[in-house]
Amino acid sequence: MTAPKSRIGIIGAGAIGGFYGVMLARAGYDVHFLLRSEYETVLQNGLQINSAVHGSMQLDSVQAYRTPAQMPKCDWLLIGAKSTSNSDLAPLIAEAAAENAKVVVLQNGLGVEETLRQVLPDNIHLLGGLCFICAHRSALGVVEHQALGGVNLGYHSGPASAAEQQSLVEEGVSMFRAAGVDSNAATNLAQARWQKLVWNLPYNGLSVLLDAGTEPLMKDPNSRALVRSIMLEACGAAAACGEPLPDALVDRMLMATDHMPNYLPSMYHDHVNGRPMELDAIYAAPLAAAAGVGFAMPKTEALYQALRFLSARAL
Amino acid sequence: MTAPKSRIGIIGAGAIGGFYGVMLARAGYDVHFLLRSEYETVLQNGLQINSAVHGSMQLDSVQAYRTPAQMPKCDWLLIGAKSTSNSDLAPLIAEAAAENAKVVVLQNGLGVEETLRQVLPDNIHLLGGLCFICAHRSALGVVEHQALGGVNLGYHSGPASAAEQQSLVEEGVSMFRAAGVDSNAATNLAQARWQKLVWNLPYNGLSVLLDAGTEPLMKDPNSRALVRSIMLEACGAAAACGEPLPDALVDRMLMATDHMPNYLPSMYHDHVNGRPMELDAIYAAPLAAAAGVGFAMPKTEALYQALRFLSARAL
Repeated sequence: MTAPKSRIGIIGAGAIGGFYGVMLARAGYDVHFLLRSEYETVLQNGLQINSAVHGSMQLDSVQAYRTPAQMPKCDWLLIGAKSTSNSDLAPLIAEAAAENAKVVVLQNGLGVEETLRQVLPDNIHLLGGLCFICAHRSALGVVEHQALGGVNLGYHSGPASAAEQQSLVEEGVSMFRAAGVDSNAATNLAQARWQKLVWNLPYNGLSVLLDAGTEPLMKDPNSRALVRSIMLEACGAAAACGEPLPDALVDRMLMATDHMPNYLPSMYHDHVNGRPMELDAIYAAPLAAAAGVGFAMPKTEALYQALRFLSARAL
Repeated sequence: MTAPKSRIGIIGAGAIGGFYGVMLARAGYDVHFLLRSEYETVLQNGLQINSAVHGSMQLDSVQAYRTPAQMPKCDWLLIGAKSTSNSDLAPLIAEAAAENAKVVVLQNGLGVEETLRQVLPDNIHLLGGLCFICAHRSALGVVEHQALGGVNLGYHSGPASAAEQQSLVEEGVSMFRAAGVDSNAATNLAQARWQKLVWNLPYNGLSVLLDAGTEPLMKDPNSRALVRSIMLEACGAAAACGEPLPDALVDRMLMATDHMPNYLPSMYHDHVNGRPMELDAIYAAPLAAAAGVGFAMPKTEALYQALRFLSARAL
C-alpha cells in the first residue's frame, strides 16, 4: 500500500509554476494553483504546455484560486512567481501552507530564501529548487517548453533536524521523479545557487542587452568570450564566498548551451513584456556577496549597471 | 604684409571635415574638399552648418573633387573621414599633398597615425588633432553643430626637427584660431589621445548599447557609475602605458558632460545609419595597448565585446 499523494500548491503559474504543476497533476498529485492575472483564463481554458520533450499537455480542470483563503492547506508549496514579488507573496504562502509544510522556492538568484524566511512562520520548512529548464509563457495559461526540465532541491531552513532535512529533500526529489521530472538532492544549496548563477549571470542579462538568444551569443566569438568571462567571475565569486565550484564547470556549461536550442531566458521575456527584471536576486545579491568578501566582478557589474539603466528607463 | 594663407585640403566632409572646412573657408583660407558620397549634393547645394554656437553657416561655392588628381596640391590636409577607411585613404592623401605637407588626423582612438604613417611618403609631416566638439551630419552636406568645437594639435612623425615640430604645431594652432576655432598645442600627442579616450570609451559605446545620449546616461546613477568606472579604467591604462593623466580628469570630464547638451556620439550615428563603427581605433587599440603592459580594462572590454557582437550582427 502506498501513502496518499501529497497535496501540492503552486504559487504563480508562469512558465515554471505552470510546467511543474501540470507535470505533477498528470502524475496524479492533488495540485492547486494560486493565480492572479491568469485566473480567469486558466479557469476557462485550463493550462496548456507545448513541450518539445513531452508533446502537448493540457490540464483541463484546473483547481485554481484567487486567494489562499479559498485553497485547501497544502503539504508542498512550489513558488514559481517572480522573485521581485517575494515580500508580497510571503503572507499568501503562509496562509496556503499546512502545518509543517514544505515551501520550495523555484527561483533564480541569491538570497531568495532569506527574503521569504524572514516573513514565514518558523514551523515551515523552506527549500530551494534549482530548475534546469528552457521554458517560457507564450500567453496566459500557455507554456512553451523547449528543452530540459530538471529540478534540484536543497533544504534551506526550518524546524527539521539534519536527518529530517535529508529525508524531506528525498521526499521532494521522489515527488518530482514520480512526475517524470529529473530531480536530485543538492547537498549544498548555497553552492547550487552559485552554480546556477554561473549560467544565469551571462545569458539572462546579455539576452536583454544584445536582444539575442543563446545561439547567436555562442556563435559570435566576442559575445562567447564575454559569456565565458562572466562565468569565470561567477566561479571566482562563489569560491571567494566559500562555495568553490568544479573547475570544469564553465566549459561544461558552454558545451551544454551549445547543444541547447536557441533560448531566450526569462529575463528577456520579462523585459520585452514590460515586467520587472529579477535584477536584485540574479545580479545585485551575488555582486553584494562578492563585494562583501572583497571579490570584484567587473564585467558582471558592468552588465548589471547597464541592465539597471534599461530597467529604470522602462518604467 | 601677411604671408599668403595656406591651401587646405579636407578629406571627407562628414561632421568633422564639414565643420572645420567651412570655418576655415569663411576665414578666407583656400579650402578644397575631397568627397565621395557627398560630392554631387555638395556641388549643388554647398555645405551647411547649423551651429548652436555660430548660427547658420552656408558655404555656397564649394571647391569639391571626386579624386585627388583633380585637386591642387595642399599644404595642410585635414582627415575627417572615419578611421575605418584609413588604409584606403593613404594613397589619396599622398596624392593630394604638396611637398612637405602637413597631414592632420582628426580622428578618435589610438594608432590612427601609425596606420597612415606606414603608407605615407617620408617627407610628409603627420600630426594628430583631437576635436572637442558635439556635431553630427544630419544629411549629405548638412552638419548640426551642438556645442564646443576646439581642436588640439600634436606632432606625430615626419621630417621635422624638434624645434620645427613645435613651429609647425603653432602654425596649425594659429590657422584654427584665425578661423575662430579654439586650438592648443598638445605637447604629448599620445597622452592627448588617451585623454580623449577617457571620454570616448564610455560614451561612444554606451550610446550604442543603451540607445541613449549623454544626458540620460549621466542622470541614471547606475549608468553614471558605469561611465565613471570605464573612465577610471582608461586613466589606469594610460598610466600603465606611460602616459599618466591628471588625477582630477575624470571628475572634470563628468562635470563637463553634465553641462553639455544631450549628445549622441558619432558611433551612435554610425551604428543607427548602418555604417561601420570605429571599434578598432577607439576600443581594440587601447585594449591591446593596455593588455600589452599587463593592465586589465574589464568593463571596457565587456563593452567592446558587446559592441563587436552588435557590429557583426549588423553586417
